[in-house]
Amino acid sequence: MTVTVTIAEAVDEAPLPFPSSPDAHLTDPLTRATLRVQSRMLAATRAFLTARGFQELLPPIIGPVTDPGIRGSKQVDVDFYGHTYKMMTSAILYKQASLLAFDKIFYIAPNVRLEPLETAVTHRHLAEFHQIDVEIRDARREDAMDLAEQLVTHVVADAVAGLPDDLALLGRDTDTLHKAVAASFGRVAHRQATTELTGLGHPQDPAAEIDWQGEEIVSARAGRPFFITDYPKGSRGFYDKEDAQHPGVLRNFDLIAPEGYGELASGSEREHDYASLVTRMRETGENPAKYGWYLDLARRGIPASSGFGIGLERFTRYVTGRQAAWQASAYPKLPGVVSA
Amino acid sequence: MTVTVTIAEAVDEAPLPFPSSPDAHLTDPLTRATLRVQSRMLAATRAFLTARGFQELLPPIIGPVTDPGIRGSKQVDVDFYGHTYKMMTSAILYKQASLLAFDKIFYIAPNVRLEPLETAVTHRHLAEFHQIDVEIRDARREDAMDLAEQLVTHVVADAVAGLPDDLALLGRDTDTLHKAVAASFGRVAHRQATTELTGLGHPQDPAAEIDWQGEEIVSARAGRPFFITDYPKGSRGFYDKEDAQHPGVLRNFDLIAPEGYGELASGSEREHDYASLVTRMRETGENPAKYGWYLDLARRGIPASSGFGIGLERFTRYVTGRQAAWQASAYPKLPGVVSA
Repeated sequence: MTVTVTIAEAVDEAPLPFPSSPDAHLTDPLTRATLRVQSRMLAATRAFLTARGFQELLPPIIGPVTDPGIRGSKQVDVDFYGHTYKMMTSAILYKQASLLAFDKIFYIAPNVRLEPLETAVTHRHLAEFHQIDVEIRDARREDAMDLAEQLVTHVVADAVAGLPDDLALLGRDTDTLHKAVAASFGRVAHRQATTELTGLGHPQDPAAEIDWQGEEIVSARAGRPFFITDYPKGSRGFYDKEDAQHPGVLRNFDLIAPEGYGELASGSEREHDYASLVTRMRETGENPAKYGWYLDLARRGIPASSGFGIGLERFTRYVTGRQAAWQASAYPKLPGVVSA
Repeated sequence: MTVTVTIAEAVDEAPLPFPSSPDAHLTDPLTRATLRVQSRMLAATRAFLTARGFQELLPPIIGPVTDPGIRGSKQVDVDFYGHTYKMMTSAILYKQASLLAFDKIFYIAPNVRLEPLETAVTHRHLAEFHQIDVEIRDARREDAMDLAEQLVTHVVADAVAGLPDDLALLGRDTDTLHKAVAASFGRVAHRQATTELTGLGHPQDPAAEIDWQGEEIVSARAGRPFFITDYPKGSRGFYDKEDAQHPGVLRNFDLIAPEGYGELASGSEREHDYASLVTRMRETGENPAKYGWYLDLARRGIPASSGFGIGLERFTRYVTGRQAAWQASAYPKLPGVVSA
């Protein structure tokens, strides 16, 4: 079976056939090169974070609670001995708890999100994917942004220096990559980004999340990665801390790749105060009663923190210059497509 | 809530309270030390395998097929856009497929198995756990056993050399550990092991899998890790190759830790011939029609291979000398126990 997906509003992208079988994908020399680059990116990530005192932990795969803030995708329920558990959509709540054990932690975390069927054609959405998940106790948003910038810069530079043959096979222009991380990343507020998008003719509600098409448009106009900060309350999960100086604005950020590759990472300063968490849950339509151990823990005290999650397959796509995120997975799962 | 579990047939083990909350577990200095050791064990594993030409891949978490050979535990079904997928109980079938991309691969693979409720008290069974999953194209069983022995030896020696303070805090006798891996591991056939167990008064069917109590008994009598080989057909999954010279005997092995820590790893030479796989599936009560992409691939050609999976939390328990495998997980999940 060959599935050809077509993009409604693509930026520089043609329809792309999804592999008809696992062997068609795994025997492709471009798949091999992409997975070698990804493996090196993970090694560089581990080396970078470990050298800075971060403790790697193995994340949970299922649990009684998970991240609700998943932009239209559905959670997967599993029956755990008669109790409804969920597959992790992100392990953010566990990251916060883990700061009780270590001040700086990271995961290479698998996540499952049943994205809407129409996202099968975006070249960006996978039903199963991984995050480089980082959390820092007592850190401010700016600390997390600085670390994300340094980490991405290091990993890109390491891949360019270490795997020139694979990147050449993939046809990736390493000069462009090199220049992208040669200076510090730009920073733009959500309000400014949405104004720019509206000016470009892209319909964008200034009170809402920027959709993936909007992210691609601002990404395609950039030569270097850049941050979008200060998303409005209501566009993100209850754990993104509200700015005390600017009510209605969140202390969060996305990291956008250049060249039209779109969003690479999301992060924030975290809400951790029990009463504020309950209020924010209610505001975002979440039932606090469903957050058993997490709210119990918040009542006793969750550490203040900031952190982020980098989408590994998206990051790999950017570094390798592939057309789609699924090409950066050994066993890709597109929304709604039954494969291996 | 405090859950106290009691062992029916324990070897050197007292009942052990399960933590009442994630913070009780995560703030325990022994948990921190155990997780630090585990992290170093994973780093040593990656360094060892990468230096020998192994490619690390990220394993699938869910998929249309998974390992059926899971000794009384239940698989977790998930609804993937209306199709019944399963959470990986082990990624063995994907390991075989991945040898089409690389000759030597490994995963650090999360697995979910709903073990029977009564296994909550064994100190060995977790509903969510990880495997160091290794597969080698065109290798014989003996190649896999040699590699497993070298890997375990390296990881134990590295932990003893690198984290003496953590092991001291944990009260682990590092002389015992050091001696355990100072010489090559013993090898005993399943037939001999079952005869020994029967002689010790433990009821053991020579045609069946050795149960965990039996594994603990032979483990407690050993000073060094050792292999049990040649399990009878019917005791293991369809992918363990039958010995052409000894019909009814499988070309497989378990690795047993000393000191009563029991089984650490399982491995085998793999069946990969299409017709033999279908026959073995039928013999083990599996419906070949449920193995869609895997059997399609076998018809086109799966590489010959051998490999193994080391239970990470069990291996960590052995190295750190903890009482139970759940103590080697940041977010432990005991069968039937609702926790974090």
